[in-house]
Amino acid sequence: MNAPDKLVQLLALTREPFPASTKVHMPGQLHPGVRVPMREVQLTNGEAVTLYDTSGPYTEPGAQIDVRRGLAGLRDAWIAARGDTESYEGRLRQALDDGTKNEAREGERIAALRAQAAALQRTPRRARAGANVTQMHYARKGIVTPEMEFVALRENGRREWMREYLADAQKNARLAGNPMGAAIPDIITPEFVRDEVARGRAIIPANINHPETEPMAIGRNFLVKINANIGNSAVTSSIEEEVEKLVWAIRWGADTVMDLSTGRNIHTTRDWIVRNSPVPIGTVPIYQALEKVGGVAEDLSWEIFRDTLIEQAEQGVDYFTIHAGVRLPFIPLTAKRRTGIVSRGGSILAKWCISHHKENFLYTHFEEICEIMKAYDVSFSLGDGLRPGSGADANDEAQFAELRTLGELTQLAWKHDVQVMIEGPGHVPMHMIQANMTEQLRHCGEAPFYTLGPLTVDISPGYDHIASAIGAAMIGWFGTAMLCYVTPKEHLGLPDRNDVKQGIIAYKIAAHAADVAKGHPGARAWDEALSKARFEFRWQDQFNLSLDPETAKDFHDETLPADGAKVAHFCSMCGPKFCSMKITQDVREFAAAQEGMAAKSAEFKAAGGEIYIPVRQE
Amino acid sequence: MNAPDKLVQLLALTREPFPASTKVHMPGQLHPGVRVPMREVQLTNGEAVTLYDTSGPYTEPGAQIDVRRGLAGLRDAWIAARGDTESYEGRLRQALDDGTKNEAREGERIAALRAQAAALQRTPRRARAGANVTQMHYARKGIVTPEMEFVALRENGRREWMREYLADAQKNARLAGNPMGAAIPDIITPEFVRDEVARGRAIIPANINHPETEPMAIGRNFLVKINANIGNSAVTSSIEEEVEKLVWAIRWGADTVMDLSTGRNIHTTRDWIVRNSPVPIGTVPIYQALEKVGGVAEDLSWEIFRDTLIEQAEQGVDYFTIHAGVRLPFIPLTAKRRTGIVSRGGSILAKWCISHHKENFLYTHFEEICEIMKAYDVSFSLGDGLRPGSGADANDEAQFAELRTLGELTQLAWKHDVQVMIEGPGHVPMHMIQANMTEQLRHCGEAPFYTLGPLTVDISPGYDHIASAIGAAMIGWFGTAMLCYVTPKEHLGLPDRNDVKQGIIAYKIAAHAADVAKGHPGARAWDEALSKARFEFRWQDQFNLSLDPETAKDFHDETLPADGAKVAHFCSMCGPKFCSMKITQDVREFAAAQEGMAAKSAEFKAAGGEIYIPVRQE
Repeated sequence: MNAPDKLVQLLALTREPFPASTKVHMPGQLHPGVRVPMREVQLTNGEAVTLYDTSGPYTEPGAQIDVRRGLAGLRDAWIAARGDTESYEGRLRQALDDGTKNEAREGERIAALRAQAAALQRTPRRARAGANVTQMHYARKGIVTPEMEFVALRENGRREWMREYLADAQKNARLAGNPMGAAIPDIITPEFVRDEVARGRAIIPANINHPETEPMAIGRNFLVKINANIGNSAVTSSIEEEVEKLVWAIRWGADTVMDLSTGRNIHTTRDWIVRNSPVPIGTVPIYQALEKVGGVAEDLSWEIFRDTLIEQAEQGVDYFTIHAGVRLPFIPLTAKRRTGIVSRGGSILAKWCISHHKENFLYTHFEEICEIMKAYDVSFSLGDGLRPGSGADANDEAQFAELRTLGELTQLAWKHDVQVMIEGPGHVPMHMIQANMTEQLRHCGEAPFYTLGPLTVDISPGYDHIASAIGAAMIGWFGTAMLCYVTPKEHLGLPDRNDVKQGIIAYKIAAHAADVAKGHPGARAWDEALSKARFEFRWQDQFNLSLDPETAKDFHDETLPADGAKVAHFCSMCGPKFCSMKITQDVREFAAAQEGMAAKSAEFKAAGGEIYIPVRQE
Repeated sequence: MNAPDKLVQLLALTREPFPASTKVHMPGQLHPGVRVPMREVQLTNGEAVTLYDTSGPYTEPGAQIDVRRGLAGLRDAWIAARGDTESYEGRLRQALDDGTKNEAREGERIAALRAQAAALQRTPRRARAGANVTQMHYARKGIVTPEMEFVALRENGRREWMREYLADAQKNARLAGNPMGAAIPDIITPEFVRDEVARGRAIIPANINHPETEPMAIGRNFLVKINANIGNSAVTSSIEEEVEKLVWAIRWGADTVMDLSTGRNIHTTRDWIVRNSPVPIGTVPIYQALEKVGGVAEDLSWEIFRDTLIEQAEQGVDYFTIHAGVRLPFIPLTAKRRTGIVSRGGSILAKWCISHHKENFLYTHFEEICEIMKAYDVSFSLGDGLRPGSGADANDEAQFAELRTLGELTQLAWKHDVQVMIEGPGHVPMHMIQANMTEQLRHCGEAPFYTLGPLTVDISPGYDHIASAIGAAMIGWFGTAMLCYVTPKEHLGLPDRNDVKQGIIAYKIAAHAADVAKGHPGARAWDEALSKARFEFRWQDQFNLSLDPETAKDFHDETLPADGAKVAHFCSMCGPKFCSMKITQDVREFAAAQEGMAAKSAEFKAAGGEIYIPVRQE
């Protein structure tokens, strides 16, 4: 088999539905065009559990998908119906967009890859003169968009199957969670989504040039989301390869994906990714801008950066990391740090600022950036270029000075009705995590917080997905809206396919732990459904309800591969005689059969029940 | 190569010292016989870092180790010098100890294995009539034992290399940690250890029949410890195999090891493990007792259990899990749980209680157990037989009723000067974790808490080491003294060699995160030393200071295998142009060269420094 065929086969495998799962759709009420996809897991006891599904049409066996044509434009009609955008020719693509000066010299193979990408690209749209097409703008005008209704249905999930479990929480306050200041309603209404977006407490990243997205929200009163980073291929080989990476990431639960490619063919790769992505795509435009100036930070300029923003906005990128808070006066604050500046974007801009002895051009041109953002509905992800790179630098003056600036810029973006989230660290020991959330809430007007980890220790290279999942779970509980994953390769090298999966699963755990702690009704119900299957020895259901059904099943089958073991009332860990759950069930039956058991217990209690009271003297 | 030779080779590999590491010893002051082993890591910049070392003599290349003879009795002379013990013939070993009724029928191979084990076993010692040989008893009499001095030196580590880092914390209060009620002194003195043991806030598990142990302490004011479970082999093949598992676990950092073997040959396996273990060994004696009655819980009796305790105390087990809190009146409290009783020991005793309509015999005979414990210095690990098996059951009445009982029993054990720790859950969502610690502190007189995880979600079979490391880190910070690991195979099957390692590393991260948050001086210093190496591009030092040097190096080398890359100022993740640390160093040099940089910054600040204030009207 040749290489392209192998990739096509790999992509087909990556598209396989999860075991016992089918794609179902919940219809909108306000907007008949809304159909929210979910994954329904059929259980062996006849019940079904419906789960939030980030995998898009890729896990629909019947979906006609051709990665060389891109996904269907789910939101096309919604965008058109608003009547506030126009198609236009768009910016002329340049050789430099792919980091080369002379494309003609690069040969036929690269030319063919570029032609494929160009064929994918849609004719760009932008806001009509004077219009503002952001979800925040609509929200503030009182409009509930189809995107908002989609989000509401998606966040609620199907409530029918949860009833048994939701009743538990009504009986036991301890199960209701501690929202730590969040206000998650029992039922998320479209109007609630609108209100959250209007006040800036949530964003719906939804570039009008990325109509392929299945709308999702990032905000403290919604499910905690996770982001996976892909990209960084020096030379891409085909659409299939890039798209497979994306499909792999969303299969395991990435809610958004950042394309952090550097080097050649950035533009081409991005076409492939955006056109085939059902989740919002984020980028760090300064990376491409730097490529355009040959990697020399000092040569960056507002003009080159501005042009890059428009290029990427036309392609459909949903959010931009903009390091506008790396201000000239803050840079000396990093000089005595243990690990200086560790953000790539932050260090590039620091170098620019110092070289020119000038204020960061992203800061001085911030309102011009807002003008671009609102013409396409690109959301800000205000970058934390001065985040700590070690526990020793956590919560220092450089970090918090930048955070306060991000708060100032948030107000400015909101003046333009541009959606904003705020990036956060990084490396933070546990006892300093909560202050990050508190300071962010204090200074950034409740704009969603989007943190990288944080890593709680520095000594775990090779296992930093775990060190950071600890911090991510905690800060997610405290109010962070989206967690940027960390893979086992962090600090060491480029993550491969398995690293991406390991990072995502660790972060799904962290996000889910936060949702459960905050008291999200659907989160605990999912836990309970799996626990019920576990207790009833429905092994297959236990696997199928888990974050990674295949691994769970494989681990079980390593020691008990026989089909009979899937219904056995024990596993190899304890063996049949020692299975505590089996014994418990015996105990229950016994107790039920014994009349007066409860009475005997009460009698025992009434008699004191404390054999060793009073304590005898030695 | 035949199977035994392969094992011998494996054991040799498992014994290899860590890269760039040598074993060093810190001498005692009070007790000249005390020599505390530590691992010294030699850095490429001429510095050295000394780390806590659980691996025992196995990582000493010069150590003469013969697993068929067992380790040297480090504490033999100390125990003898106290003059309060006597050698005696010991209990007669029975066929039933290994779960068989007729050993003669089992063939030569098994007989040979048993003979090997018997050859290892030392002549047992016990307290002389009327004597009490527990570390707590000595502590309360004001005696600072060699064990206590050993612990003090071990906890402090070598302070010389830490100075640079400790100075940071003096400058920055944020680095000093938040001890959450713990009181960790700057320097741990032997007298401090004595006082902590005397008041029951720490234990030193140190059975007089296990003189091979390198003393360690479990307590809230010491480094957070971790336990790894091994055992469960249905049929063991050789001493080498069992010992290799143990050596593997302590190599990666297990502070204690529990032998949870069930089935045949329990007694024989235990001989091998204890005689070759430099770390304390814990067991759950009810498992063996149940084997002796053919697996029928109802047939258990105090007499059989008592005999098993003496058998194991003579072998040298350092702590026993005793489920004395599973009281008859509490059992009905579990009937409506989502997952009933999930502790093996708990369910066995529940079944016994209900079958006989009698109070748990461990509870009714508790003081008789104390008499045995104090004759050998076996510590209690009071088992949480009613711990929650799912988030839905966390912190319920059954769990806390048992916890209060464990508090009552703690007072009783302390009356006998018997050392005690308290076991805790289990499955607990994040928002309910702190209450576990608070309740434990309230009811158990600050006896050390020893928790299993807790798991913060239920949906992650295959990844429960991560789900539980989150809870473990948090509860460790809140005050738990030892964390029992969970492996990726939890809920699914028997962990293999790699699962054991994955579980241990995840728990080393959790324990270290807790130590850093609590403000343990040596913990943060370790983080800083690695971060400094990272910032200075000393790749080799970064690997060697990490929890798993081989994996860190392998991950790095996957993309940059050349030796030159070990000194390169970048890695494959960002490449040379984008390496933020390199840019930061350029920035620093640039800033240093620019006279007046700080002045310019001050001038900028004085001029307002806020380009966008006042905010313009739209």
